[in-house]
This record gives sequence, C-alpha cells and structure tokens, in this order.
Amino acid sequence: MKIAVLGGDGFVGWPTTLHLSDLGHEVHILDNLSRRWIDTELGVQSLTPMDSIQERCRIWHELTGRRLHFHLLDLAKEFERLKAWLVEHRPDAVIHFAEQRAAPYSMKSDRHKVYTVDNNVSATHNLLAALVESGIDAHVVHLGTMGVYGYSSVGAPIPEGYLDVEIDTPDGKKAQEILYPTRPGSIYHMTKSLDQILFQFYAQNDGLRITDLHQGIVWGTHTEQTRMHDQLINRFDYDGDYGTVLNRFLIQAAIGYPLTVHGTGGQTRAFIHIRDSVRCIELALASPPAAGDRVEIFNQMTETHRVRDLAEMIAGLTGAKVAYLPNPRKEAPENDLIVENAKFLSLGLEPTTLQAGLLEEVVEIARKYKHRIDRSRVPAVSGWTRDLAASVERDPEGKRLKSVS
Amino acid sequence: MKIAVLGGDGFVGWPTTLHLSDLGHEVHILDNLSRRWIDTELGVQSLTPMDSIQERCRIWHELTGRRLHFHLLDLAKEFERLKAWLVEHRPDAVIHFAEQRAAPYSMKSDRHKVYTVDNNVSATHNLLAALVESGIDAHVVHLGTMGVYGYSSVGAPIPEGYLDVEIDTPDGKKAQEILYPTRPGSIYHMTKSLDQILFQFYAQNDGLRITDLHQGIVWGTHTEQTRMHDQLINRFDYDGDYGTVLNRFLIQAAIGYPLTVHGTGGQTRAFIHIRDSVRCIELALASPPAAGDRVEIFNQMTETHRVRDLAEMIAGLTGAKVAYLPNPRKEAPENDLIVENAKFLSLGLEPTTLQAGLLEEVVEIARKYKHRIDRSRVPAVSGWTRDLAASVERDPEGKRLKSVS
Ligand SMILES: NC(=O)c1ccc[n+]([C@@H]2O[C@H](COP(=O)([O-])OP(=O)(O)OC[C@H]3O[C@@H](n4cnc5c(N)ncnc54)[C@H](O)[C@@H]3O)[C@@H](O)[C@H]2O)c1
Ligand SMILES: NC(=O)c1ccc[n+]([C@@H]2O[C@H](COP(=O)([O-])OP(=O)(O)OC[C@H]3O[C@@H](n4cnc5c(N)ncnc54)[C@H](O)[C@@H]3O)[C@@H](O)[C@H]2O)c1
Repeated sequence: MKIAVLGGDGFVGWPTTLHLSDLGHEVHILDNLSRRWIDTELGVQSLTPMDSIQERCRIWHELTGRRLHFHLLDLAKEFERLKAWLVEHRPDAVIHFAEQRAAPYSMKSDRHKVYTVDNNVSATHNLLAALVESGIDAHVVHLGTMGVYGYSSVGAPIPEGYLDVEIDTPDGKKAQEILYPTRPGSIYHMTKSLDQILFQFYAQNDGLRITDLHQGIVWGTHTEQTRMHDQLINRFDYDGDYGTVLNRFLIQAAIGYPLTVHGTGGQTRAFIHIRDSVRCIELALASPPAAGDRVEIFNQMTETHRVRDLAEMIAGLTGAKVAYLPNPRKEAPENDLIVENAKFLSLGLEPTTLQAGLLEEVVEIARKYKHRIDRSRVPAVSGWTRDLAASVERDPEGKRLKSVS
Repeated sequence: MKIAVLGGDGFVGWPTTLHLSDLGHEVHILDNLSRRWIDTELGVQSLTPMDSIQERCRIWHELTGRRLHFHLLDLAKEFERLKAWLVEHRPDAVIHFAEQRAAPYSMKSDRHKVYTVDNNVSATHNLLAALVESGIDAHVVHLGTMGVYGYSSVGAPIPEGYLDVEIDTPDGKKAQEILYPTRPGSIYHMTKSLDQILFQFYAQNDGLRITDLHQGIVWGTHTEQTRMHDQLINRFDYDGDYGTVLNRFLIQAAIGYPLTVHGTGGQTRAFIHIRDSVRCIELALASPPAAGDRVEIFNQMTETHRVRDLAEMIAGLTGAKVAYLPNPRKEAPENDLIVENAKFLSLGLEPTTLQAGLLEEVVEIARKYKHRIDRSRVPAVSGWTRDLAASVERDPEGKRLKSVS
C-alpha cells in the first residue's frame, strides 16, 4: 500500500512510519515539524537525542534499503498544497497524527488555546475536504482519545464509540445508536471531540472510510525498528507539558526527585505501549470500514491504572519517594475507568504490560540518558482555570520541591 | 446594559441592534462585513436597497438621538484586537451572530467548506477564549440552529437541548443528561454542532454564562424599528445560496416563475418571524443562566411547515404555479418535525404566524422591489455531493425552468 503518515515526525508517528515501511508499504511523511518548533518555544528537548527527520530517513534507507519520503507541509494552513499532494500521490491510506496533542500545552494561555483549536480543527477538516474534492477513496485512520468522554462520568464501561439510547416518540420508544456522548476536560481533548463530528459528517455525506482510534496514554520508547540504530531512536518527552505522567515519574525517579502526584492520585487512566500502538495501527489498516458505513471506532489501550498506583509501581522499582501536590487540572479527584477493548484483542493484539515493560524504560531510557535531564522542566505549570493557575505558581510545597536536588 | 452585537450588520443582527437600542441599551456592532463581500463574490444583492452600516447608524441617530457604535473587526482572525476591545469596553452581554450561515454556500466547493469551518469555529472559540482571558463575565447569547440534529431522525419531538439517557454501569443503570445528539446535514450545520461542544467546555471549565438559541428559519423583513425609515430597511436575500425557501418562493411568485420545490417537498422545517426573533433575544438576555450552570438552550421557533405546504400557501396568495425539481441536498425526502418551544412561550413570546404575516411580505417586499430581482440568481445550484452537484447542473427540467420568463 501507499500510505501517507501525517505527523510522521512525532512520537507515535515515527515508529509507525518505520513499522509500516518494514512491512513493505511505501510510506510518505507529511509534517510541518511544528512539534520541534514547540520544543524550541518551551526550551525543552527530547530526553533521547533526536536527529532531524531528513537524517532519520537517510539512516533508515542505509540500513534497510527502504525509502521514506518526507514532505514539509502544514495541513492546517496549506489546503491547496495538501490537495495537490493527494492528487499527485493518490495514497491508499492516510494515518492522521498531525495535531497538537498535549492537554497542558493547550491550557497554557489564550494563545495556546487558540492555536490548538485552529490547528487541530483545520488540519482534520482540510484533510477530509481535500479527499472529497480530489475524489480519493483513501482509508483515513485518525488518532483520537478516550479523554473526549471526560473522566468524571458515572463509572460506566467506555464502549467502542457508540451508545444505544431509547428516544420517546409519538409512536412509543425507538432505539437509536448515537456517538457516545463526550465531555472533554481540556482544550486538547475538546478538539478530538470536534474531530468526531467532522468524521461523522464526512462518512455520512461523502462516504469517506474513516477509523478513529481512541488511544490511551502511550508509554515506552523503543520498537523493534527504532532499536536498530542510535539515530533512529524515538523521542521521549518528560517536561510538564508534553511528558505524560509515566514519563515524568521515570525521570523524577532517575534524578532522585520525589514522584509528584497531583491531588490524591486517584485519577485512573488507560495505557498502551508504543509497540502495541504501532501494531494496532497495522491491524486497523487491515480492517477498513466499507464506504457509507458509520465511522469505525476502536479503543486503543491495553490496561488501566490509578496514578498513585503507577507512582507506587515506579517507586518500588527505583526506590523513589512519592509526593502529593495540588492538582492544576479541573477534574474529578478520583474516578473509575473501565474500557472495552475487545475489538483489537479479537484482531490478534498481544499486549506488553506495564509490569513486564517498565524496567526496560527505567534502565534503557531514564538511567541511560539521565545526564540530559533538565530538572527545571519537570514540574507541570499549566493551570486549567485562572484560579488553578494562580495556585500552581504560588504553591509553597511546589516551590520547595522545585529546589530539591 | 452595554451589549456587543457580533455580526450586527447581518439579516438578524441589524434589527436586533435596533430593537435593543430602542430599549435603551448601549449597543456596539462588531462585524467584518464579510457578508457584504460574499454578495460581491456571488454577484447578488439584497432585494431591499441596503445602505452601508455607517450610514444606517447615522440615520438611526438622526431619527432617535441614540448612538450605535460600529467596529470593523474579524472575530475569527483578529484575536488580539477582539480581546483588547473586550477589555476596553467590558460589555454586560455579547450576542453572537457572526458566522457564515448559508448551508448551500457552505457546500459550494472545497474552498467554501474550508472557509465556513475555519471562520465559524475560530469566531466562536476566539470569543470564548478572549472572555476567559480578559476575565469578563458577559452573558453570551449565540444563534444556533435545530438543524444540528439533522431532519431524518426517528420523529421524536426535539427537546430544548438535552436528552436524559440511561447508562449501564457495574452498579446498574444510571441516569445521565447529555446534549441532545447531533447529526448535522451540511457543513454549515456541522459548525453549529461544533459550537455546542465549545460552549459545553467553556461553561464547565470556566463558568462562562452561555445561552444557545436553536433558531428556525427566520422569515419576514420589517420590525418596528426597520420600518421607521427607508434607509433602515433590513436585507432580504433571495438567491440560491442565502435565500431561504420562503423568500425564494416569494420572489418566484413575484416574477411569475414557478415555485421550485426540491424533491417531494416533504421536508418539514421550523420557522420564526424576524419580529419574534428579536423579541426572543430580548427575552433570553433577561434570563441568563448562573455561572457554573450548564449551557441554557432554547428552541427559537414558532411553527413548522412542510415545504410543499408553504409553496401551496404562497401559490394560494399569488396565483403562482408549483414545480417539482430534483433535490440537490442529501437528506430524507420526507420528515416529521415536532419542536418543543415551551420556554419562550412561557417567557411571554406572542408569535406572528405565517398565515397572518405572509401577505405583508408579498405586497410590501416582493412586489414593491420586484424591479430589483435578478431572475438568474434564483435557482439553487450547490450540490451536497459530487454526484448531486452533477445532477443539478445537468437537470433538463431545471434548464427549462431557467429560461421561463
Ligand atoms: N502520545 C500519546 O500518549 C497519545 C495518546 C492518545 C492519542 N494520541 C494522539 O496521537 C497523535 C500523535 O501523538 P504523538 O504523541 O505522536 O504527538 P507528537 O506531538 O509527538 O506528534 C504530532 C506530529 O504532528 C505534527 N503536526 C502537528 N500539527 C501539524 C500540522 N498542522 N501540519 C503538519 N504536521 C503537524 C507535529 O509536528 C508532530 O510531528 C496525536 O493526534 C495525539 O493526539 C497520542
Ligand atoms: N437567517 C436565518 O434564517 C437563521 C436561522 C437560524 C440561525 N441563524 C443564525 O443567526 C445568525 C445570524 O444570521 P443572519 O441570517 O443574520 O446571517 P447574516 O449572514 O446576514 O449575518 C451574519 C453577520 O456576521 C458577520 N460575520 C461573519 N463572519 C464574521 C467574522 N469572522 N467576524 C465578524 N463578523 C462576521 C457577517 O458580515 C454578517 O454581517 C447566524 O449565526 C445564523 O447561523 C440564522
């Protein structure tokens, strides 16, 4: 297949690109490299030393003889170039990773909110409109998140995208299937909720074939391919904006900093290893919905954990201490999370569990690259509201923790 | 109150501005005049001769001694200026009309789809983000549409915004209130569905006070204030893009053209007279939700009619013939529509019915300005999909009709 990977320079996009190239597909990366620019804006960098995308593609070719094609393109701002690219290359499938994906970054300031909404909505909508206009029947695989549902709901198991409801009509109750109702808890998550409406419309009106993968928090760094050469290594974010909770704990443990749990740590989240994530994308590509069908939605996760249990797990492996801080997010302090993921399991996914894979991260990543850690970047500083933002900055315990060494 | 009317140069915005000014409020219009530019793009103009916004404001001042303040500002593209304006003026309420509002225009081409999504999402989101950032607790009144629900549903009465559902949980069924599920049928309607998610988020996260008015098709031209002077007259659109079904029938009747019904004319739509529309806005302003509450949603309509019944009603008044054409829209050929509108009625709305008000439109508008009608602009030419677009252009009956004189 000829596959376009939008956002193929990113944390999930890059190993996906290598995995699909390894399987023999012709892979094109379209990326505007905005994520690298955000690194520059924030003054942070990947813990793992990451080469330019051009250099990474060159190394892959040297090692495997396979070519990756990189195209510098802003999906959100260059509609005409995107359309021309599609018409010229006519991909069989398009995998869409190209969005601003950090919830804390999306809540940093009004400028970051506006950027996240404009970038993500336009990127997704431009892609869909360009496919329709160019008449290309590519299967669109999008990376979404279960976070669209919010985490404060009634504790019902999260189904794979849809809910059956009964509606009162003059002729009695009628059953109807609806998109599972969303209640996103950050601007970032909100954009994924907007994406769902775009997908529903384009599948219904134009028969686009769309799969939306509601992914959990991706952890882990290496895949079989990124391991093949130092210069193919994947990025590893640990800063307060892009570092997910697990990565930040790993880094805190490596530098002898307490693991900072927000609130009671009773928040439950869903997780998936990067190796399983790229495999899920392979599986989703192999099972496109038919044209005219509803959007296919998979939950792409393999296990759930409470944040405080994660902290304990890492403390157990590393000897780190755990510290509890005020929560900068507006969210329920404790939540249950039951997620249905029968679809991927039935397609043959064999998960890497946290229990089995965490030690590799501690040793091969956190300890190995410890010398590159900038400890001032670890705290999370984006508050969800004006009041929460103020409390984060003023928090005396936070101040104290920042000076622990 | 100090009130900002975003989109105050438009069809509903202008009479609303006058109505609120008449009630003694200090009214500021913010508008980028994009609607006038679209007239230029399409080569169409309001049937009623419409002056510049500056001139209209001058006349109003001359007549009444009241000042209207006009600010040329693009909500979608000038975030910083919008924020600065809010900080300087600190309005008590903001009425948000400023979106691209024609479904056929939104489906014209990929460029029009992209414009509609980018303009409408950014306009709404910029407003919300700017209010939060500037800490202004203005009541936001937005004009939405029941069209977000699609018209092919199970025939259930459309409630005022919310639906109670039961969700299976490990502890048995639990009741939950959700936004009534949307299934928009055009890009334009889709943007209103996106707006709902933005409102839900900002009400929940930041405590913004938001009222979303799900408005039916607005008909009629005069309000008490626009009648006061020739140069205060409201716009009247009759072209295939912006002219709503009723206006187009009125114009067809005036020039002895058959009333062109799409499909079987079995589509049922909701209607409201412009006088009732401005009154509803006054009522909504007087009943803001409390901060921290959910978004207040009203259905702003007073009656429903099938398109073919409307045609018959106007044929009865004018002697026009009715012609049936292929439908360029992808929609159910026949639908029922029951709409709950108890909230506005209970607040004291006294509707102007079609039966009572139509003749005024026939005589005072359509016949009076007949000499300004460009008959080539009456047919609707935007197809909802590539196939439908092709059928519209090729349709032999349509061709014949275009040459009727
Ligand atoms: N990482 C996770 O834990 C996780 C979890 C759930 C869902 N997701 C989703 O998976 C996708 C990829 O996540 P990631 O962690 O690899 O993110 P990332 O930020 O590392 O990668 C995103 C890539 O998209 C590019 N991009 C952004 N906007 C673009 C635009 N307008 N035009 C072209 N390129 C653009 C960036 O430059 C970057 O290379 C995202 O959509 C994210 O929301 C990620
Ligand atoms: N007319 C109807 O029948 C009807 C029915 C239901 C809902 N509505 C809604 O009511 C609102 C007003 O409708 P209308 O018929 O008056 O539309 P209109 O097109 O006549 O007026 C919209 C106004 O907003 C302005 N505008 C658009 N984008 C802007 C931007 N980015 N910045 C600043 N100004 C901008 C335009 O210049 C125009 O003056 C719309 O949101 C529409 O969706 C209208």
